[in-house]
Amino acid sequence: MISAQQRQVRVDLGTRSYDILIGPDLLATAGTRIAERLPKARAAIVTDENVAAAHAATLSASLEQAGIEAATITVAPGEKSKNFATLERVVDEVIAAKLERGDVVVALGGGVVGDLAGFVSGIVRRGMKFVQMPTSLLAQVDSSVGGKTGINTQRGKNLVGVFQQPSLVLADTTVLDTLPEREFRAGYAEVAKYGLIDRPDFFAWLEANWRDVFAGGDARTHAIAESCRAKAEVVARDEFEKGDRALLNLGHTFGHAFEAATQYDGSRLVHGEGVAIGMALAHRFSSRLNLCSMDDALRVEAHLRAVGLPISPLEIPGELPGAERMLDFIAQDKKVSRGALTFILTKGIGQSFVARDVPPSEVLSFLQTTLHAEAA
Amino acid sequence: MISAQQRQVRVDLGTRSYDILIGPDLLATAGTRIAERLPKARAAIVTDENVAAAHAATLSASLEQAGIEAATITVAPGEKSKNFATLERVVDEVIAAKLERGDVVVALGGGVVGDLAGFVSGIVRRGMKFVQMPTSLLAQVDSSVGGKTGINTQRGKNLVGVFQQPSLVLADTTVLDTLPEREFRAGYAEVAKYGLIDRPDFFAWLEANWRDVFAGGDARTHAIAESCRAKAEVVARDEFEKGDRALLNLGHTFGHAFEAATQYDGSRLVHGEGVAIGMALAHRFSSRLNLCSMDDALRVEAHLRAVGLPISPLEIPGELPGAERMLDFIAQDKKVSRGALTFILTKGIGQSFVARDVPPSEVLSFLQTTLHAEAA
Ligand SMILES: NC(=O)c1ccc[n+]([C@@H]2O[C@H](COP(=O)([O-])OP(=O)(O)OC[C@H]3O[C@@H](n4cnc5c(N)ncnc54)[C@H](O)[C@@H]3O)[C@@H](O)[C@H]2O)c1
Ligand SMILES: NC(=O)c1ccc[n+]([C@@H]2O[C@H](COP(=O)([O-])OP(=O)(O)OC[C@H]3O[C@@H](n4cnc5c(N)ncnc54)[C@H](O)[C@@H]3O)[C@@H](O)[C@H]2O)c1
Ligand SMILES: [Zn+2]
Ligand SMILES: [Zn+2]
Repeated sequence: MISAQQRQVRVDLGTRSYDILIGPDLLATAGTRIAERLPKARAAIVTDENVAAAHAATLSASLEQAGIEAATITVAPGEKSKNFATLERVVDEVIAAKLERGDVVVALGGGVVGDLAGFVSGIVRRGMKFVQMPTSLLAQVDSSVGGKTGINTQRGKNLVGVFQQPSLVLADTTVLDTLPEREFRAGYAEVAKYGLIDRPDFFAWLEANWRDVFAGGDARTHAIAESCRAKAEVVARDEFEKGDRALLNLGHTFGHAFEAATQYDGSRLVHGEGVAIGMALAHRFSSRLNLCSMDDALRVEAHLRAVGLPISPLEIPGELPGAERMLDFIAQDKKVSRGALTFILTKGIGQSFVARDVPPSEVLSFLQTTLHAEAA
Repeated sequence: MISAQQRQVRVDLGTRSYDILIGPDLLATAGTRIAERLPKARAAIVTDENVAAAHAATLSASLEQAGIEAATITVAPGEKSKNFATLERVVDEVIAAKLERGDVVVALGGGVVGDLAGFVSGIVRRGMKFVQMPTSLLAQVDSSVGGKTGINTQRGKNLVGVFQQPSLVLADTTVLDTLPEREFRAGYAEVAKYGLIDRPDFFAWLEANWRDVFAGGDARTHAIAESCRAKAEVVARDEFEKGDRALLNLGHTFGHAFEAATQYDGSRLVHGEGVAIGMALAHRFSSRLNLCSMDDALRVEAHLRAVGLPISPLEIPGELPGAERMLDFIAQDKKVSRGALTFILTKGIGQSFVARDVPPSEVLSFLQTTLHAEAA
């Protein structure tokens, strides 16, 4: 049962299919919704300190009311919690709570908590049940959908994990009111991404309505639901990332390289900002390769800039390495297969495609122009 | 292509189906067999120090000859390597070798190496390819078949892991010649187990031919192939252990409790010895509950004793806890669901079944008689 303010998106994965509910009041009604789908399951809530302070009590009360016994496991906020030591601790606490295979791990938090808790639920007793309650915009439109989970190692981000689909995703749009604005804006880059991949009408809608999405209410719910629908479609076509799913990396090859070049220092660059810059560059680069018009590239930049997102590496505070070193970062990115450079390029707004053999020399000369724009 | 001395067993799991090859000469021909199934894959061999000393060079040479580049990662022998610290180290070395999703982790070793390396292959880049080359009898007839992988935590054995089916299992029967005899005998308990679960003719064959199985040659190959066939059938019926697969735990509920009670100290009790005692007790207990004849229970004991396996807890060196404490160990075992005690009981040789609500009081009084047999 969903209300008029809520939306439901189905992720179609055969026996692993599940619903994403989006809208207000989902935190307070989580207990009955989980109990309905996972009768008799007990739960462990995994969350971070920031989210716990604002929302954990509401969720615990809702679970208790529905008769679901729940332990709460809190980790430090931030990317650093996606490591082996925290994984081991959370695994241990889930086991200590005597949860069994039919019991559920509930991720209440942003993408960090979702990725970590999802991985935990995938490996404790070789797989428990899992529910996502994403609390950041990025998590609601991206990381909570599609079943990728994992942690980082010294050698790179998200190099270790499992595919673990949740049984249910509850995206309460009002919890986003406590999200710092910079985080909301960064998450918005992923929303725009879906328009740019293959939904030109959605991109146009965002250009007209982005202020309402930031303000909250039904436009926000619509934008999140449309994003989930977009991601769910790609994931349904390619659950285990053998082909098409790579489209979701639009803006990410460049973006990841800048994140790596800034040592993942969030004070300089957060992920969504890297993606915004990356999407702007992907369009510029496509235009330079005569794949897409300069008008479209400029339209993308205008929208991202309007919402307050960066569009050029020159906006990143502090020094950046030179073009050659940046190319190394790109080549090291895990999306690179057997030496050939894979990029998501585009023929225009909403017409992205996977390009599997982009010549490194083209990338290098393009990077040289973007990193030294003053000189150009 | 297999020779007349080799056997092939198919594990039928839809898109995850694979072959088990059993017989001599598989180590030396591993390279071409792997290259055939996983063209262009690079490899990381995971092994332990004992196995590396005896067999790693043969495997490396075989891979090299087939044009497969391979890194070798060696862990300390023994159960202690199935922990988070070793997991993290092996994961890191696989990533350092720059292996990608289509590349393969080859487990060359006993069940410890197989469980650890399989888990690694299941989580690096959210799943790489995996090949099992089991070198202990236990690994050839049990742990390398069926896709369960994992590590231990302070709170219990095999509590963390994934289901990760291999692409191929190569069980070279001549590598068992370097296996310590006590390990071979312990693995034999699992061979006998398959007869006792649902293959009475196989059990009778073992009673007649076990000496040849220990000696090597074709009887050994036959016994291993028949065991793999038995396990593969159960696994095909119930890949994710929702029901029938529990049958494979015949002897294991008691066995695990004794392993826990002896702090997994291999100098007192190794796994297969615990299973042998557990199978003897499962038959005695079934007979006490009037499910199976005393004759069958005695026949099981006679065979296990003939091959040199223990059949009573009184044979375990050192002190054991009392019956009440042993019941606690049993109740803590992960096969116990929601308080009800689940046991594998039997109606006779080859007629085992899953009993889901064995009264703890019955178990307790049975344990009292077996732990204090002198007094009886
Ligand atoms: N699994 C996937 O498919 C996938 C996809 C994209 C990104 N990711 C991962 O997601 C992570 C980034 O996610 P993120 O941006 O949500 O980061 P995050 O989880 O660190 O959250 C960002 C910050 O916002 C805080 N926060 C979250 N919700 C809040 C709320 N409602 N109120 C107040 N504070 C709140 C968090 O405590 C944190 O400080 C990265 O690790 C990335 O690798 C995964
Ligand atoms: N995944 C499963 O389905 C499954 C099933 C049963 C058991 N297991 C696991 O298997 C493990 C036990 O396996 P194991 O008994 O093989 O233990 P093991 O891997 O520790 O091997 C036993 C000993 O024999 C040595 N060894 C192995 N092969 C040798 C050879 N050919 N020559 C010389 N030495 C050799 C090893 O170095 C080790 O010292 C346990 O951790 C258990 O949990 C897993
Ligand atoms: Zn992203
Ligand atoms: Zn066993």
